[in-house]
Amino acid sequence: MQHGHDILLSLFVVFAAAQIGGRLARAVKLPGVIGEIVAGCVVGPSLLGWVAPSEPLEMLSEIGVVLLLFAVGLETRIDEMRRVGRSAFLVGLLGVIVPFLLGSLWAHGSGYDWAKSLFVAAAFVATSAGITARVLQELGVLQREESRVILGAAVIDDILAMLLLGIVTALQSGENVQIGKLAVVLAEAVGFVVVIGLFGTHLARRTGAKLKARKIDLLPYALTLCLGLAFLSTQFGLAAIIGAFLAGMIASETPQREKLEHDTRPLLALMTPFFFVLTGAKIELGELASPDALLTLALITAIALVSKLIGGGLGALALGRRGALIVGVGMMPRGEVGVVIASLGLAGGVFPARTYALIVAMSLLTSIVTPPLLALLLRRRNDATAR
Amino acid sequence: MQHGHDILLSLFVVFAAAQIGGRLARAVKLPGVIGEIVAGCVVGPSLLGWVAPSEPLEMLSEIGVVLLLFAVGLETRIDEMRRVGRSAFLVGLLGVIVPFLLGSLWAHGSGYDWAKSLFVAAAFVATSAGITARVLQELGVLQREESRVILGAAVIDDILAMLLLGIVTALQSGENVQIGKLAVVLAEAVGFVVVIGLFGTHLARRTGAKLKARKIDLLPYALTLCLGLAFLSTQFGLAAIIGAFLAGMIASETPQREKLEHDTRPLLALMTPFFFVLTGAKIELGELASPDALLTLALITAIALVSKLIGGGLGALALGRRGALIVGVGMMPRGEVGVVIASLGLAGGVFPARTYALIVAMSLLTSIVTPPLLALLLRRRNDATAR
Repeated sequence: MQHGHDILLSLFVVFAAAQIGGRLARAVKLPGVIGEIVAGCVVGPSLLGWVAPSEPLEMLSEIGVVLLLFAVGLETRIDEMRRVGRSAFLVGLLGVIVPFLLGSLWAHGSGYDWAKSLFVAAAFVATSAGITARVLQELGVLQREESRVILGAAVIDDILAMLLLGIVTALQSGENVQIGKLAVVLAEAVGFVVVIGLFGTHLARRTGAKLKARKIDLLPYALTLCLGLAFLSTQFGLAAIIGAFLAGMIASETPQREKLEHDTRPLLALMTPFFFVLTGAKIELGELASPDALLTLALITAIALVSKLIGGGLGALALGRRGALIVGVGMMPRGEVGVVIASLGLAGGVFPARTYALIVAMSLLTSIVTPPLLALLLRRRNDATAR
Repeated sequence: MQHGHDILLSLFVVFAAAQIGGRLARAVKLPGVIGEIVAGCVVGPSLLGWVAPSEPLEMLSEIGVVLLLFAVGLETRIDEMRRVGRSAFLVGLLGVIVPFLLGSLWAHGSGYDWAKSLFVAAAFVATSAGITARVLQELGVLQREESRVILGAAVIDDILAMLLLGIVTALQSGENVQIGKLAVVLAEAVGFVVVIGLFGTHLARRTGAKLKARKIDLLPYALTLCLGLAFLSTQFGLAAIIGAFLAGMIASETPQREKLEHDTRPLLALMTPFFFVLTGAKIELGELASPDALLTLALITAIALVSKLIGGGLGALALGRRGALIVGVGMMPRGEVGVVIASLGLAGGVFPARTYALIVAMSLLTSIVTPPLLALLLRRRNDATAR
């Protein structure tokens, strides 16, 4: 009878903190997600120390963001994605190139040799779609062109980031970059997304009607598909959320789409707080307690934000200036991919613990800065449309 | 990008196995839950070895059963529980006494001294409400008098099992049983249930209408309450599911009850498979591969089943013979509490690993035997009523 107390207490603290933080944020007209992240920082090891990131909590967090991207996929139609394909591709590509260039210039400027600089810069690249997706969903603007461009670009971005990791790892370890091998990796990842995306949605359209006629509740099947594709996409070197997003897009082609959307909402209410609170709990305030560290952090965060804004924005110029701005801001949050690259660099001795802490803090800061900016841009625009 | 693969794969395997097992079971007119347990045994370490119980999976399993009892609580009104209070108390009390007596007789008969025998017998006692609750829910009979008696008795049962553990631990370690201390433990547990149950439902009735008027979505608050009370009940020595059940009962007094019930269904679809599949994955077929072990297992399972049937049935005689039979069968499944007592006994050197394996296997067998029996009894009765 005495087992599992600690974990139950952690669950309660994380969940309650998310509710309180989310409420307070909404009370001052900020997106709820920012309150959840800050609440995580407050209850996390840096301040109150009530909750520490642990394996079980990490897993709940992973399930949370997987379900979130599944839900976002549910609101995304493949036909609409195709229509924004060109912009999404440009945003993904330029949104990787510009941060990679600026990041490696900074790293080289602060004393790393070129091979190491490129590795550091790789951690600046990958956009994490979770934060932006949640803000877009909260504001109810997932159907807008900008939102679709951002989501499409996030898929491209993830593929490119994975390639980049392959390249910088090879350079760093002194191997030759094997173009042929990289081409295979690229082809596999693109193939996975295209085959699953096109074939899956086609299949869903054909079988969905039959399933509906037989009155089968699609939710368990959709969740199985979501978990399966989330896992499968990691096998192709992509983030789990890419597979979950594809699963959502597939499920959105069935006639049960609305019921699935409806059923997914309570799942998000239960699981996503773990992702956002844990994001906040990982902020190590202690590592940043010197003026020197804070300055460097401010600098690299500015580089990360501005470079993505420029790269993403340039790619989306076809949407007009304000549209490009929204897309640029929406691409700003970095997340677990950058952190994973940074921890590979730390483990491989590419850079010291402080650089690692800085990269992690930068990732989290970009996640904190984005939601209010995005909300501001989109709310104003909504007001303008309403007039 | 390369983190969490194994756990994602485990999630997928567990979830997919549950869907397949559940479907197959329903295809042959068995309750879905039995298929999920058997599927767990198949993918678990004993057979395919695709999934092994791990800390993260244990936690998902715990969340699953906590949400299940929360959902059951949502379908339970406190007034109706009071009406069956007398029967529930008798069922809980006799359902503890008879298995404890028969269990200690068997243990003494197989060579343990009395102090050890009482410890072994304590592992025979506690009913695990999860399995029965799921079957009752699947059959749509949670509103029946028998169901309410079973749920009420499960609360009483849990309190008594906790007391019994205190007594046998003291006896085993050679201490005197301190009646005063036990009385405090009893008072605390009863106090927790009564205060939370009565005060909480009262409060929910008063504030629920206000919250509804302000159009607040109650789900996040209800889930916070559920996790909070689940943790709190472990602090009073009770199982987490007792607190979750109380939280559900409290939430069921608000005007949003139906919406909450509706929103909880997808949560159960996502989380409960982890509980049932993990239950099955824990069955260690290897330990039972000798004729001798199988005979002993058959004997103690029979003792466990019959003693609960007699104890529970005698307590529910007021419901008529068939009602008493349903209640007795509904009380038969043992679960994590018995397993925890057994592991305490193993760790404390009270009995060897084989006795532990037998007790665990017995718990699981009772969980497998109950659903079909219960379904048979309740379906027949439904048919009879329909005529």
